[in-house]
Amino acid sequence: MDVQGMKCLWLEQQKLFFKEKVPIPVLKEGQALIQILLAGICSTDLELLRGYYPFSGIPGHEFVGTVVASPENPTWIGKRVVGEINIACGFCHNCIMGLTSHCEYRKTLGIHDWNGVFTEYVALPLTNLHAVPDHVPDEMAVFTEPLAAAQEILEQTIIQATDRVLIIGAGRLGLLAAMVIQLTGCELDVVIRSLKQKILLEKLNINTITLQNKNLKKYDVVIEATGSVDGLTQACKYVRPRGRIILKSTYKGNAEINFSGIVVNEITLIGSRCGSFEPAMRMLGEGRVDPRPLIEAKFPLEQGVNAFEYAGRQGVLKVLVQPGIDNFTGLSEAEQ
Amino acid sequence: MDVQGMKCLWLEQQKLFFKEKVPIPVLKEGQALIQILLAGICSTDLELLRGYYPFSGIPGHEFVGTVVASPENPTWIGKRVVGEINIACGFCHNCIMGLTSHCEYRKTLGIHDWNGVFTEYVALPLTNLHAVPDHVPDEMAVFTEPLAAAQEILEQTIIQATDRVLIIGAGRLGLLAAMVIQLTGCELDVVIRSLKQKILLEKLNINTITLQNKNLKKYDVVIEATGSVDGLTQACKYVRPRGRIILKSTYKGNAEINFSGIVVNEITLIGSRCGSFEPAMRMLGEGRVDPRPLIEAKFPLEQGVNAFEYAGRQGVLKVLVQPGIDNFTGLSEAEQ
Repeated sequence: MDVQGMKCLWLEQQKLFFKEKVPIPVLKEGQALIQILLAGICSTDLELLRGYYPFSGIPGHEFVGTVVASPENPTWIGKRVVGEINIACGFCHNCIMGLTSHCEYRKTLGIHDWNGVFTEYVALPLTNLHAVPDHVPDEMAVFTEPLAAAQEILEQTIIQATDRVLIIGAGRLGLLAAMVIQLTGCELDVVIRSLKQKILLEKLNINTITLQNKNLKKYDVVIEATGSVDGLTQACKYVRPRGRIILKSTYKGNAEINFSGIVVNEITLIGSRCGSFEPAMRMLGEGRVDPRPLIEAKFPLEQGVNAFEYAGRQGVLKVLVQPGIDNFTGLSEAEQ
Repeated sequence: MDVQGMKCLWLEQQKLFFKEKVPIPVLKEGQALIQILLAGICSTDLELLRGYYPFSGIPGHEFVGTVVASPENPTWIGKRVVGEINIACGFCHNCIMGLTSHCEYRKTLGIHDWNGVFTEYVALPLTNLHAVPDHVPDEMAVFTEPLAAAQEILEQTIIQATDRVLIIGAGRLGLLAAMVIQLTGCELDVVIRSLKQKILLEKLNINTITLQNKNLKKYDVVIEATGSVDGLTQACKYVRPRGRIILKSTYKGNAEINFSGIVVNEITLIGSRCGSFEPAMRMLGEGRVDPRPLIEAKFPLEQGVNAFEYAGRQGVLKVLVQPGIDNFTGLSEAEQ
């Protein structure tokens, strides 16, 4: 470890900087120090720059890394890991009920009161870590967190093979949701806005539609992953009476909705956030989901500010940040 | 039947009138003519006057009456009945799925394209009628429709005896919901705003609270029956992470909500409207719910406009309209 400190991205007052010589985290009881191999930019990271939540510090919560220090349990050292993003107190009512991701006093990696992963080293409690099987490459493991978030949908509601399901918002999260949901065998349509999305989904044998089609049917389940206010209005339009809308978008500000319509049509809205890492890792390890086609570019940590700018462009999918590389690498096949 | 026509209340451009000599409905195939014995004013009726929905005609959908004509099935004649409010086509996708209350082409008694019950005579399909057992008085039977709406909550979600449940809005519908929900054995609190509500609920051994209490706990289920935009904001505040909010309010206009909070806390919102009449009638017949303490006044049909004005006052509970009586009768015990 460099005694000079570490390089990282630093968010302050909605501005992102590249910083050097930032002190490496000092471990507290039960924590490990992880060297970041690869980190992913998520829509929530971009929303933080728009003021979704007033976070100051190192952003980023999607990563794969190697444990380099673990004073209380040295067997972790050298292991490749991913990490759950909610740092729970373990003692509040929600933690005792097993809802650690809803801990009343939780800190959240790179989002709330805990420095994140666009850096060289991050500290996390050992209880948050999951070992990555050797055969799962970094480029897959880095998707564990968003894939778990996509799988959370199936932990919250039953999607039957007879259900008609619509996904609105075929972005970073929506595409992972499509990969997970198609495994239920349901009748799945995904709303696309670009040729890139169409090509990606067609390769997965997932049906694509556009909302310009006038004769759209009504769906049993609509998954709203647009990341914007308008998504919910659209979802209300395409869900059948007594149907379900899964809400995946977090963004700054309020949305204005006609709730009488939700009451009259007896719609169920289900807010959905983080999921369990174990089934997500199993999915990746067994090859049931391969999110790598979503990768569009890898930026060195030093070019992290550019990486954010790139990730924020309309229609850009997963952008990765990698400490220790020198240059920006390629576009994904889908982009070419 | 009076060949001169019938008396009724008439809604047009958000104004309510008393009218005479309105033609008695001419029956179509499969319909019965019902003489109204008693009709109840619901918050939806009051919202129609505020422009919630652009209805012109005779309002009202809560009633008990006597069948006076039933050409195709004369065995109904003379029977005391209540009637489901959704007049379904029977042929659309939703009807075939058994969701007749969500028929795509439905008409709704006193709300949409079908004259309602603040009148002397109403027409309804025989399939909408339910006979009232002899021992159930009119003053109970008239609550079948709103009681079914309250019971709909338990058709949509499981409320366990271990759940903590909060009802916000102890009005006409909220109090019926309280009566139904308390039968689950759950830990029920009802938010009150008046001494009248407190007395009514205490007689039912239902715990009351006010939102001024600073140390309110979080609830597994919050039932929002305030009839106003603010109710949902309050509900979001008092529901626990992964909890459920049941939406019972329909009102004019949109509500502005922070949906990110619903996503982050993984709240489920369940829109809830009409319920099944049979279990509601069973509840009334078996005496498990007695809604009569909610009755505050009975007005003759001729004074129906005054009845609406009275029902619209802050805190007033059920106001009934009765054709054939001469004078306004009394206030309920709770009011005195």
